[in-house]
Amino acid sequence: MQNTPKEWQVLKQIRNKVQRHNPNTVVPLGDDGFVFKNFPGLSVIAQDMMVEDVHFRLDYASAFDLGHKALAVNLSDLAAMGAQPHFAQVSLALPKEITESWLDEFYQGMTALADRFGMEIAGGDLCVSPRGVIIDVSVHGSCERPLTRHGTQPGDILLASGPLGISTTGLRALHEDRRNDFPQAVEKHLRPMPRLDLLPELRKHTDKIHALMDCSDGLVNDALILANKPYNNGQATSAIGIHFFPDQFPLEDETIRMAHLAKAYEYALWGGEDYELLMTLSPEHRGLFPEWTEVGQFTESPGVFLIHGDAKEEIESFKGWKHF
Amino acid sequence: MQNTPKEWQVLKQIRNKVQRHNPNTVVPLGDDGFVFKNFPGLSVIAQDMMVEDVHFRLDYASAFDLGHKALAVNLSDLAAMGAQPHFAQVSLALPKEITESWLDEFYQGMTALADRFGMEIAGGDLCVSPRGVIIDVSVHGSCERPLTRHGTQPGDILLASGPLGISTTGLRALHEDRRNDFPQAVEKHLRPMPRLDLLPELRKHTDKIHALMDCSDGLVNDALILANKPYNNGQATSAIGIHFFPDQFPLEDETIRMAHLAKAYEYALWGGEDYELLMTLSPEHRGLFPEWTEVGQFTESPGVFLIHGDAKEEIESFKGWKHF
Repeated sequence: MQNTPKEWQVLKQIRNKVQRHNPNTVVPLGDDGFVFKNFPGLSVIAQDMMVEDVHFRLDYASAFDLGHKALAVNLSDLAAMGAQPHFAQVSLALPKEITESWLDEFYQGMTALADRFGMEIAGGDLCVSPRGVIIDVSVHGSCERPLTRHGTQPGDILLASGPLGISTTGLRALHEDRRNDFPQAVEKHLRPMPRLDLLPELRKHTDKIHALMDCSDGLVNDALILANKPYNNGQATSAIGIHFFPDQFPLEDETIRMAHLAKAYEYALWGGEDYELLMTLSPEHRGLFPEWTEVGQFTESPGVFLIHGDAKEEIESFKGWKHF
Repeated sequence: MQNTPKEWQVLKQIRNKVQRHNPNTVVPLGDDGFVFKNFPGLSVIAQDMMVEDVHFRLDYASAFDLGHKALAVNLSDLAAMGAQPHFAQVSLALPKEITESWLDEFYQGMTALADRFGMEIAGGDLCVSPRGVIIDVSVHGSCERPLTRHGTQPGDILLASGPLGISTTGLRALHEDRRNDFPQAVEKHLRPMPRLDLLPELRKHTDKIHALMDCSDGLVNDALILANKPYNNGQATSAIGIHFFPDQFPLEDETIRMAHLAKAYEYALWGGEDYELLMTLSPEHRGLFPEWTEVGQFTESPGVFLIHGDAKEEIESFKGWKHF
């Protein structure tokens, strides 16, 4: 779309700061489109939006946090496909009150994360927003063999790559103005780290992995996707059941402390935005992923249950993250 | 980012409607990322945002119009690189008042245009917006040899692929509630057609084309980019001048009628969003592009002038599209 002279000026300044040398770049930032030589293997793309007062508030999220997180949530999607990231495009709609130093800090947060993975900001857009900050990022990566959400078999175990429920703990701490009491949880909420560090391990055992996705909507909702593809394009698929093992959930101390007398495992079940990876595989291959935690198992018979020792409690109401 | 159960439901319905069979698709819509086999040549990406009450108003733009236009402006960027489109990702932030039938119509507008070029909607996001509709589209295409904005030489002529100023004519008609008097202009404004039809011609003569871009910010602003790359990343470049030939501008009758006693060519000079292509090349190759109009020429000496017969009028104030 049409930009104003003021926007051209700001875009130019951004360009000078975010541009990196990438051997695959053919036409850099600043043309009608960004052109690059293809990487070996397949292309993987994803796109994810963040809206002020829906996904974050400016009173607790800094510009640096938002630059980091808007890219991180997209990189998590690439990690969940087993893909290496290369390029990101960033569109921003910003209220007039936003200062240039805010914008500067935003891109510092984003490029700090991008540089960590040798990737590059390749374009995007900048507009005025009548209300609220809106950030939309698309990413481009590559992989040899994609790891999809499909392929879970009854009997498969469900593994999580790291702590669950910690992001929700941080969000609650921010909402309750108890940031200093839950520093680790707040950090995880504001600056989640996409699990691209797991790519070598995932690639090594691609053949054994039945399904993989990132955990962004809470364990129950995401495991349901792995169980029977509820959002898939009308393909007939037999729903299988899930047993969750809450006693084994990877819960951080801060989550347990935040839950107090309530059930801390509920943070893992229903809280979102942990951006850890969830994997399903046959129990016989459990040993290939010693650092992952077994949080559940898929069953032939339908129904979703919590297993506490010998006790079995059915989950019958699926409220998603609104549960909190 | 995290979605709500309601958003999952709507996303699923959208998926069913937009999904197409593409031989290069490896992992379709509905996974963490969309995976495809690379097309021959180089990859070209672009991303462009549209914001309600900044770029459009809902009282005159239908959902179908917006679905069309949000994709069209991105496809225009691909055309301007000489690239064939393949995939688009679409992020939408929508106020609660937006109905499902609005959303349906939006995707009808978008897929109607996408189908025209055999391309596919490959993903994106959907969120609540606290105020106003925000649409952000990214596109992926490919080309053998990109046509960039760089390479204009003094003495080069400036060619336009079609009418200029017509989109601004339509916008004014909409703002003045005179839609029925300017049907062609309104159509051009609401549903611009990206000039992908010119790709075969552009490819045939790639060697001869010095620079190419799409005309989205008005002829003056865009020709200035072709003249001396004012937004480029600090590369030293000698500014060259421009002579515009307003007597030869490709103006539609409706633009002349809208301008009334004023100068119709000003609509072409300052109005934006025409999404025609602008090309620079040596005068000796003028004959290769008989259907394009010669609207100016670049000069060794700096300065931007309007040439009316023997008279020469200097443009000294660059107000961009705010001029209107």
